[in-house]
Amino acid sequence: MAGCARGSARAVLAFLLAPALVALLVAPARGRGGRGHGDWGAAELLPPRENAALVARFVTNVCDWGALATISTQEGVRGRPFADVLSLSDGPPSKGSGVPYFYLSPMQQSVGNLKENPYATLTMSLAETSFCRKYGFDPQSPLCAHIILSGTVIKVSEAEMDVAKNSLFIRHPEMKTWPSSHNWFFAKLNITNIWVLDYFGGPKIVTPEEYYNATFQ
Amino acid sequence: MAGCARGSARAVLAFLLAPALVALLVAPARGRGGRGHGDWGAAELLPPRENAALVARFVTNVCDWGALATISTQEGVRGRPFADVLSLSDGPPSKGSGVPYFYLSPMQQSVGNLKENPYATLTMSLAETSFCRKYGFDPQSPLCAHIILSGTVIKVSEAEMDVAKNSLFIRHPEMKTWPSSHNWFFAKLNITNIWVLDYFGGPKIVTPEEYYNATFQ
Repeated sequence: MAGCARGSARAVLAFLLAPALVALLVAPARGRGGRGHGDWGAAELLPPRENAALVARFVTNVCDWGALATISTQEGVRGRPFADVLSLSDGPPSKGSGVPYFYLSPMQQSVGNLKENPYATLTMSLAETSFCRKYGFDPQSPLCAHIILSGTVIKVSEAEMDVAKNSLFIRHPEMKTWPSSHNWFFAKLNITNIWVLDYFGGPKIVTPEEYYNATFQ
Repeated sequence: MAGCARGSARAVLAFLLAPALVALLVAPARGRGGRGHGDWGAAELLPPRENAALVARFVTNVCDWGALATISTQEGVRGRPFADVLSLSDGPPSKGSGVPYFYLSPMQQSVGNLKENPYATLTMSLAETSFCRKYGFDPQSPLCAHIILSGTVIKVSEAEMDVAKNSLFIRHPEMKTWPSSHNWFFAKLNITNIWVLDYFGGPKIVTPEEYYNATFQ
């Protein structure tokens, strides 16, 4: 009888332990390549959608990459719009400054473009995180909030270099290993226009002043 | 004795079943909002990186959204590069044609831009899926493969409309419910230039011919 009771106890224990063991097996590789690739429960933290400036700050902080549009200088497509993917960071999770910092190399096509024409538009979307999938929002639905930031991409000044470096390296530790032969430098988007698509009714315009004045609780 | 043997059998059964039950509980909401938002084991299926044309076809098929660069026609930023997020599809998972189809409305900023200047560049990245996070690749690392497709965005012809519709609605079922007041129409990117960044050494150029001739095994 004692043996049978232990058998039942084992059944319960096995039932309780198995999911934990499976979870350990399938857990994503954290700490390698980057931190905060949309896997820290962003869904619970979306600000009220009517506070467009705060939503914009939220998206900038949650995302650690975006797509940058520039004017192409490449042979055959000169003058046409060009798009590329860049890693970025405005600071640690929940502690972002709102400034999108980049780690760029003159070897990148976008950087060649920016040398001639510094105007650029950066777009970031909650589709980059688990948010939209979790709530079943299509990437093109405004409910899958995304933002569009226009301005110019400029090299970061000496005074701002530490902030840029810390913001980027905390979210993108792999950057510390990138080869110096690529002449990496810190840059940022100097924002002049902001559009927020987070609800039906069309894009909401947010001024840079409203954007930088928005504060997380 | 028979009772105790059943106890041990229950333990084994519980151990085997529990993860499945947990998986059912935590499974993401499928069928709402979109299908194939990077959650179908893309990592196992990445083609050999040296086959740049096939990698490009893979990324186009796996991604169901991208960022499109256009030239802005909007007041205050006219002539500058603009970027926006668009849903897309080249067909069902593993059965893509390589043609990125869009479902657009004249109310969208990008569409206003395209009316004046149809040149556009679309970029898609495996950072949109679980691939890069799983292997710890930074979004800006070439190992987190991304592609850049340049060309023109044009309305889909009558003959191609069914293909466009099926491709899009199978991956974006929510589109079937979008309001007709937005005058949605099917469009596609007519590709002229392709760059593939999937390994160190810079972007690989793939011709549209190589791209469309690539076949999945």
